[in-house]
Amino acid sequence: MLTLYDYLPSGNGYKVRLLLSQLGRRFRLVEKDIVNGETRRPDFLALNPNGRIPLIRFEDGRCLAESGAMLWHFAEGTPFLSSDPFERALTLQWMFFEQYSHEPNIATARHWIQHLGGRAKWTGKIEEKIERGHQALAVMESHLRERAYFVGERYSIADIALYAYTHVAEEGEFDLSRYPAVRRWLDRVAGQPGHVPITQGVFD
Amino acid sequence: MLTLYDYLPSGNGYKVRLLLSQLGRRFRLVEKDIVNGETRRPDFLALNPNGRIPLIRFEDGRCLAESGAMLWHFAEGTPFLSSDPFERALTLQWMFFEQYSHEPNIATARHWIQHLGGRAKWTGKIEEKIERGHQALAVMESHLRERAYFVGERYSIADIALYAYTHVAEEGEFDLSRYPAVRRWLDRVAGQPGHVPITQGVFD
Repeated sequence: MLTLYDYLPSGNGYKVRLLLSQLGRRFRLVEKDIVNGETRRPDFLALNPNGRIPLIRFEDGRCLAESGAMLWHFAEGTPFLSSDPFERALTLQWMFFEQYSHEPNIATARHWIQHLGGRAKWTGKIEEKIERGHQALAVMESHLRERAYFVGERYSIADIALYAYTHVAEEGEFDLSRYPAVRRWLDRVAGQPGHVPITQGVFD
Repeated sequence: MLTLYDYLPSGNGYKVRLLLSQLGRRFRLVEKDIVNGETRRPDFLALNPNGRIPLIRFEDGRCLAESGAMLWHFAEGTPFLSSDPFERALTLQWMFFEQYSHEPNIATARHWIQHLGGRAKWTGKIEEKIERGHQALAVMESHLRERAYFVGERYSIADIALYAYTHVAEEGEFDLSRYPAVRRWLDRVAGQPGHVPITQGVFD
């Protein structure tokens, strides 16, 4: 069986848990507490030298890091990833946008506020995260104003990738009332068959 | 003909210029000076609401952002991207690693030092970039110690993605003499047929 090394509050891990659950693919969950440094210890670094969750270990022992790579790998050949070349490129465009322009701001602000001491502790650093996070949300809002989903008017791994940290952005003190199209899209994603909340999933 | 909106010192743009040149695919280059804010003006935001280069415009007017998405799109079906499912997943793993753990540190330090006022101006912020950049280089060094290339022992878009900012890391004051396997790999990449330097390329 697949093994997923993960930290349940992680949106990056949640992307993989959500897709695997919606695919009906069972996996074993091994929790690693990133706040206590469990992914920076030798046993885990032997599996992922970059010291990060999520990490997938396949039945044959091979490992795969990076949530985006996992989403692509597991979605290939399923309705969660288009077979059209340009739609596939756009799917990756949004997934790279999420990892470069969205997650480092929105997820980091949330992590600092929720797990690393609260907002006041990060004064002087968190303001830039908040500003750039809002820039990313504005890009999403403008895209979703006339679209139901990010790519090809169909739910895909581009939506899963962007949903993970957007739906908990308020835990990073991002007020989503400024983004009505994003909020309608969040509801559409949460209404998909087999949807599971962030700290849950169908796993052993 | 393809149009590439780009800024010649950009490593992200260079990835695309290098691949297109090695594929023998001609393109028109439109330069945008990111230091002068040319990608944040209405005419460019109409093409890419995220306000970043590189951006590809296809013959039919459709646009594609994010260098990783472009690399994947243009490499599909060529020797620059494996057809093996696990190697494809590893290729994306390294490309997401580059955009998340490598580029935001190494490229940003270089940009601050070379284009935005020099190292002293960024005291208090640049130290974290330097530390995390070295962590990324150490992950690469450990991977390359027993391998010639990042995936499948063959030159691919994973190498192109990581080469772009690693080969100019010393412009960000990263001393690469600590990473001998990385330096040997840089030479192997620079020796590939059709290789072009960062501010050049085969374009109109």
